[in-house]
Amino acid sequence: MSFNTFGKIFRFTTWGESHGTAIGCVVDGCPPNIYLSEKDIQIDMDRRRPGKSKFTSQRKEADKVEILSGIFNGKTTGTPISMIIFNKDARSRDYETIKNKFRPGHADYTYLKKYGIRDYRGGGRQSARETAARVAAGAIAKTVLKKFLGKKFKIIGAVTQLGLLGCNKKNWNEKEIRKNPFFCPDKKSLKLWEKYILAIRKAGSSCGAVIELRASGIPIGLGAPIYSKLDADIASALMSINAVKGVNIGAGMNAAFLSGEENSDEIINLSGKTKFKSNNAGGILGGISSGQEIITSFAVKPTSSILNDRMTIDKKGNNTKISVKGRHDPCVGIRAVPIGEAMMACVILDHYLLNRAQCG
Amino acid sequence: MSFNTFGKIFRFTTWGESHGTAIGCVVDGCPPNIYLSEKDIQIDMDRRRPGKSKFTSQRKEADKVEILSGIFNGKTTGTPISMIIFNKDARSRDYETIKNKFRPGHADYTYLKKYGIRDYRGGGRQSARETAARVAAGAIAKTVLKKFLGKKFKIIGAVTQLGLLGCNKKNWNEKEIRKNPFFCPDKKSLKLWEKYILAIRKAGSSCGAVIELRASGIPIGLGAPIYSKLDADIASALMSINAVKGVNIGAGMNAAFLSGEENSDEIINLSGKTKFKSNNAGGILGGISSGQEIITSFAVKPTSSILNDRMTIDKKGNNTKISVKGRHDPCVGIRAVPIGEAMMACVILDHYLLNRAQCG
Amino acid sequence: MSFNTFGKIFRFTTWGESHGTAIGCVVDGCPPNIYLSEKDIQIDMDRRRPGKSKFTSQRKEADKVEILSGIFNGKTTGTPISMIIFNKDARSRDYETIKNKFRPGHADYTYLKKYGIRDYRGGGRQSARETAARVAAGAIAKTVLKKFLGKKFKIIGAVTQLGLLGCNKKNWNEKEIRKNPFFCPDKKSLKLWEKYILAIRKAGSSCGAVIELRASGIPIGLGAPIYSKLDADIASALMSINAVKGVNIGAGMNAAFLSGEENSDEIINLSGKTKFKSNNAGGILGGISSGQEIITSFAVKPTSSILNDRMTIDKKGNNTKISVKGRHDPCVGIRAVPIGEAMMACVILDHYLLNRAQCG
Amino acid sequence: MSFNTFGKIFRFTTWGESHGTAIGCVVDGCPPNIYLSEKDIQIDMDRRRPGKSKFTSQRKEADKVEILSGIFNGKTTGTPISMIIFNKDARSRDYETIKNKFRPGHADYTYLKKYGIRDYRGGGRQSARETAARVAAGAIAKTVLKKFLGKKFKIIGAVTQLGLLGCNKKNWNEKEIRKNPFFCPDKKSLKLWEKYILAIRKAGSSCGAVIELRASGIPIGLGAPIYSKLDADIASALMSINAVKGVNIGAGMNAAFLSGEENSDEIINLSGKTKFKSNNAGGILGGISSGQEIITSFAVKPTSSILNDRMTIDKKGNNTKISVKGRHDPCVGIRAVPIGEAMMACVILDHYLLNRAQCG
Repeated sequence: MSFNTFGKIFRFTTWGESHGTAIGCVVDGCPPNIYLSEKDIQIDMDRRRPGKSKFTSQRKEADKVEILSGIFNGKTTGTPISMIIFNKDARSRDYETIKNKFRPGHADYTYLKKYGIRDYRGGGRQSARETAARVAAGAIAKTVLKKFLGKKFKIIGAVTQLGLLGCNKKNWNEKEIRKNPFFCPDKKSLKLWEKYILAIRKAGSSCGAVIELRASGIPIGLGAPIYSKLDADIASALMSINAVKGVNIGAGMNAAFLSGEENSDEIINLSGKTKFKSNNAGGILGGISSGQEIITSFAVKPTSSILNDRMTIDKKGNNTKISVKGRHDPCVGIRAVPIGEAMMACVILDHYLLNRAQCG
Repeated sequence: MSFNTFGKIFRFTTWGESHGTAIGCVVDGCPPNIYLSEKDIQIDMDRRRPGKSKFTSQRKEADKVEILSGIFNGKTTGTPISMIIFNKDARSRDYETIKNKFRPGHADYTYLKKYGIRDYRGGGRQSARETAARVAAGAIAKTVLKKFLGKKFKIIGAVTQLGLLGCNKKNWNEKEIRKNPFFCPDKKSLKLWEKYILAIRKAGSSCGAVIELRASGIPIGLGAPIYSKLDADIASALMSINAVKGVNIGAGMNAAFLSGEENSDEIINLSGKTKFKSNNAGGILGGISSGQEIITSFAVKPTSSILNDRMTIDKKGNNTKISVKGRHDPCVGIRAVPIGEAMMACVILDHYLLNRAQCG
Repeated sequence: MSFNTFGKIFRFTTWGESHGTAIGCVVDGCPPNIYLSEKDIQIDMDRRRPGKSKFTSQRKEADKVEILSGIFNGKTTGTPISMIIFNKDARSRDYETIKNKFRPGHADYTYLKKYGIRDYRGGGRQSARETAARVAAGAIAKTVLKKFLGKKFKIIGAVTQLGLLGCNKKNWNEKEIRKNPFFCPDKKSLKLWEKYILAIRKAGSSCGAVIELRASGIPIGLGAPIYSKLDADIASALMSINAVKGVNIGAGMNAAFLSGEENSDEIINLSGKTKFKSNNAGGILGGISSGQEIITSFAVKPTSSILNDRMTIDKKGNNTKISVKGRHDPCVGIRAVPIGEAMMACVILDHYLLNRAQCG
Repeated sequence: MSFNTFGKIFRFTTWGESHGTAIGCVVDGCPPNIYLSEKDIQIDMDRRRPGKSKFTSQRKEADKVEILSGIFNGKTTGTPISMIIFNKDARSRDYETIKNKFRPGHADYTYLKKYGIRDYRGGGRQSARETAARVAAGAIAKTVLKKFLGKKFKIIGAVTQLGLLGCNKKNWNEKEIRKNPFFCPDKKSLKLWEKYILAIRKAGSSCGAVIELRASGIPIGLGAPIYSKLDADIASALMSINAVKGVNIGAGMNAAFLSGEENSDEIINLSGKTKFKSNNAGGILGGISSGQEIITSFAVKPTSSILNDRMTIDKKGNNTKISVKGRHDPCVGIRAVPIGEAMMACVILDHYLLNRAQCG
C-alpha cells in the first residue's frame, strides 16, 4: 500500500511540488555493487527537461540531479539512493490569477474536494514536474539492467502519433528518435509535425499523442501470474503518468478486431531458436515475458492548460471563465517519451528481481 | 508485493487450477457488520459461469460458492471470508493430446520456461477459470458498496464491440444488457451478433471484443495521487484479466486525437450542483474520482484455442502443428463482462476505504 | 498491508474460525519444483494438535491437512498452495454460557468493541486454532529450506521455562525434545514438570512458559537493514502468536545487564573459518544473519480460560463473574513450540528469497 | 515489502548514511489539513541529538530538520512530506583505522558479506544516525495524533534500567523524565546513575538499558487480528531500532511466571466506565487496544564501540585486535527513549488510520 511509492522490490518513492523548494526520489531495493553516477542519471533528465526546444514548455529548469545517499566509491551499496532536484525557475505569480478557479481537465477540483486544501502553485503535487523524479529512478533501473542483461538490453520510446498526424512505423529509426525534438521515429514526418505543432501553439490550443515503447533483450520468465502480471504492472505504471488515458500491450485495443488465427502468434523453431511469427502479444503471454520484444503504447491527452477561454467554476461555486497562461507544452505527450521509458525500465527490473527471488 | 493477491485494504487472494479439486478466494479487510450470504455472491457467479448459452463454453459448472469463514449470524465480522468453488466438470483427458505442445497465444510456453513445471490440464493456473474467484470477491465488494453508497451506486458492463461488429451506444439499455446472452446494450445489434458468432464458431475460429464499464454513484475523492491513482489501479485490475490487451479511461486512446478544447471537460454550476459538460476524463481527474460517472473500456483478444491448425513447437523444441479441441468460448470477451465489473467494484471499494483512512 | 497475511515474498494468508466449517491457509510465492506432499505437512500438524496428552486440551482434532492447489505431479508449481483443515470436534454449546460475557485476558471485549460483532463460539477468529494454519505454512517453508540449505539446516524449539520451573539448558537434548509431551530439552526436569502441570490443572488454574528456538545452517546475509531486519521480522512473527507477550533475540532483555565487553561477540579465524566466541547477538548483527545459530525466545502468558471465578462485565456493562469451562490447555505455551518453529521457518525462507532478489 | 519503509498507511521511508551529505525521511499517507511546522519536529530532534550532555556522544550535530514538501500555508496537504537533515560534524578520518576490520557487535561483518561493499565511515547506513529520521517521522505522527485524540493522548518513554542499576517505578515522574539527561523517571536514582555512567565511560566500557514506553488516551479498537496485531507491529517497530534485543508488552517475559489468576486482567464497571483491575496485558488484548494505557518496554544492548581491545578479524580473514575510538555513547539506550516514542507514535497513528479504513 503506497500512495507515492512504485514497485515491489526495486521501489521508488517520489516527493515534491512544482513550485516547492525541490522535488526528489528515494530508490530502495537497488542491487549493490553497480557503478552509478549522477551523469548516468542526468542523461535521461536532460531528455525530459523543459525549455530545450520551441515545441515544449519554456520553463527553464536545469533539472540537475544530486545523489545524497546510497553510493560509496562510485558504486551502489544496496541502501536507499536519495536524489534531489532543486526547483529553480518556479514563477508562482503566474498562478495567482487562477488560485481560486478550477482549471478544466486538471486535478484542481478533485484535489481540493479530496484533501480540503491544495497547493495551487504550478499544480503543486499534481504537476507533471513529479515525473522528473521518475526519470531519475528509471535511469538507475536502466543502469542496473544494462549490467544484468548486457548489450542486448534496450528500451526505446517514440511518439508515433502527434494529435491528428500519424507517422509511418515502417520507417522506425532509433537514431532519428534521438535526434529530433519530437522523439519521432520517422524522419519523413518531421516537417509536417513541426508546422502542425507551431500552428497549434499559435492558436493557443494543444494536442494529444500516442507513445510507443519497445524493450528488447528481456529474458523469458519475467512477470507473474494473476495480479502481478508484467502487463498489468506496465499498465499501472503508464496509467500513473499524468494525462495518460489509454494503454495497449501488443495489438492492444486493436486485438478486438482480430480473429483467433490472426491474433495468436505462431511459434517456430528456427535453427534451434524459438521464434514467433508475429508479435500481437507484445512479448507477454499470460503475464510473463516470452523473450520477444515487449511492445506497449499509451495515449496522452492534449494539454489542458490552453489560452482559449473555458467555462469553469470558482472555489465558491460561481460560474466563471478561465484562460491558462503560464508556460505550457502544446503537447505534453512529447516529453512523456523518457517518462514512459523510465517506468518501463523500473517495471522490468522489478520483475527481474522478483523472478530471481521465486525462481532462483 | 503479492502474486495472487489484489488490493490494498480490501484485499483478495485467489487460488486453484482449472482441473484441480477446487478454486477459491480469501477476502481480507472487508468491513464488519454487513449482511452477506452465498446468494448475494451466486447471482454474479451465474452471470459469469460457462455452459449457459450456445455462445459460450459448454463446460458445465454450477460454480456454486460456499462461504467457509468470516460470516456470523448472516453478517461479516471483519475477519477473512474464505470461499470455495469445487470443480465438477473438468475433463482432463481433453488435454492429454496437447500436454507436450505449446498452444500459441496461451501462456503454456512462458509458464514452463519460468517455473520449469506446468499443470497443463485445462491451462492449470493460467486458465480463465481463476476469474470465477474474482467474481466472488467482486460480489462482496458490490454488497459493501451498496450499503455504503446507497441506491445511486451501480456498476454495469456491456460488450460494445464483438469482433468486427460494433453497436450503437446511443441505444445503451441496461435492461437489455441483463437479458441477452451477449451483454449487448443495443437490442438492434443482437440478431447480427448472433449470426456472426455462430458463423465464427462453425468456422472453428474466434473473435475479440471490447467491454465498457460504467460506475455511477461514486463519491468525489476516491483515488490517490501518483502511484495509487484510481485509473492506474483500474488499468492494473483490468489488464490482469486473462486475454485483456488494452485499457481506456474515458476518451482513452482516442484522447490523442482531440484538441485541448475538445478534451478538457468544462465545469459548470447548474442550480447549485457542480456538473461537467462532457466526460472525456471518464470521471477521473488527476487519479481522483470527480463525482462523474466512471467510464472505462478494455479489449479482449480472440480466444487462442481454435480448431484450425496452427504452427507451434513441442517441449523438445520440434516444429509441429496444433488444433485445440476442448470446449471453448468462441469469444471470451462475452464472459469478461461480469469479471470486469467485479474488478471495478473491488478497486472502488478499496479506494473508498483508503480515502476513509487518510481523509476521514 | 495485510491483516491476515504474513510475509513479503513467501506469503501466507490464513482464514477460519474455531467453530466454523474449516480453517485454512493459502501460501503464495513458494518456489516451484519442490517435492511436497500432505505427509510433509502432517508431521508438524501432529506435533501441534490438541488431545494428544493429558497435559493439553482434550479437544479431539485430527487436524488433517488437505492440499487443494499448487501441486502437480507431487511438486510445487509456483502457484498458490491452498490448504484446508476441517473442524471436527467443535462443541459450540460449551460457549453458550459465555456468549454475553467477556472473558478476562481474552480478546472478547476488544473484538466486540472494534467490529461491533463477534463470533463468540470458541473465540472465533481470535482462537489459537488459527495457529494450525500457520504450522501448515511453516511445514512448507521447512521443506523448501531443506532443499535449498541442505542437511545442515534445522529449526528446533523447546519449552525452557514452564511457569515457575526452569530447566537446565546445558542438558539440551534434541531427541528428548521430540520425545516428551512438554517439548522439554532437559530429561531431568520432566518428572517435576509433570507433577507441576497436573497440580495446576487440578487447581483449575494455568501457567505461562518460555519457548526457545534455535535455527542452524542459516547462511550469512539474510535480513535487511532498518525496517526489514531479520530480528524485527522474527519479533513481529512471534508476537503475532496468541498469548505471546515478550520476544528476545540472543541475550534479549538480559543484554541490558551486560557490559560492552561481555556482550559483543568477538570474531576469530579458526582454521580458516570465521567463528564467534559467544552468541549474545543470537546470530543476527545489524538485522542480518551472521552465520551463527539464530537463537530467539518468547514468553507465553498463562491460559486465560481458567475454572476459578473471575470478575468481568457482560455485554450490557453489568458487573458479573465468569468461570471458563471448555477444554483448555493448562499451559498454552507447550503447543506454541511447533508454532514458533513454523513462524521462524517462514521468516527465514522469506529472507532467503528476498536476499536472492536483491543480492543475487 | 520494503527494506527502508515503515508502516501501512502512514508510511515513512528513511535514507542516508552517517557520514554522507545528509540523512532524511519521506512521510507518506499523512492526513491533510493538520498544522505542522519544522518547530514541531525540532523539539523531538533535540531530545535525541548527540552532544547535549557529557553522558552521550560528543558528536556535535544540530540535527536541524528542513521540510522540503507536503506543507502549504503551514498545513499538511496529504502529499508526501520530505525532510532533510544535513550531516555537519562527520569526522570520517576517525574511521580510517578500522576500515579493514570488523567491529565486534556491529554489523560491519554482515553488511560486507551480504552486499559485497560497505560504507565503513561511521557505520554508514547501519549507524544509529538513521534514527534521527525516525524521530522526525514520529514527531509528525504525534502532531497528527494530538489533533485526532485530543489532550488525553500522550506517549512518554523513560529509562527504567541503566546497566545493572534499576530505578523505583513507583516514583515515576514525567516532569523528572523531561528534566534529567537520563530520561530517568525516578529522581532518587539520578546521583547513582550519574556516577555509574561516568565510571563506565572512564573505564572505556559501556552498558545496556531498558526503556519503558507508556501511551495513554488511545482509543479502543486499534490493531487488527493475526498478522497486524498492534503488539506485533510494536515489536517489529522497536526491534528495528539499532541495538534492541528484547521487547515486552505489558508483563512481557515475566508473564511466563504468572498464574492465570494473576495474569488475566479482571474487568469491572466502575460508575459506568469499563475499567481493568490490572494491566498485565499492556493495554492490548488479541492484538487490539483495550483503552487501557499501552505499556511496552525494550532492552538496548551496551554500545559495541568500546575502547578496550577486542579480538576480531580483518577483511582478509586474519586474526587481529580492535579498539574503537570515535565519539560514542557509553549507553546508547539513553538516546533510544525519543526513538522508541517516535516508533510507538507511528504505529499507533498507522493503526488509527487502518481502523478508520475498515471500521469507519
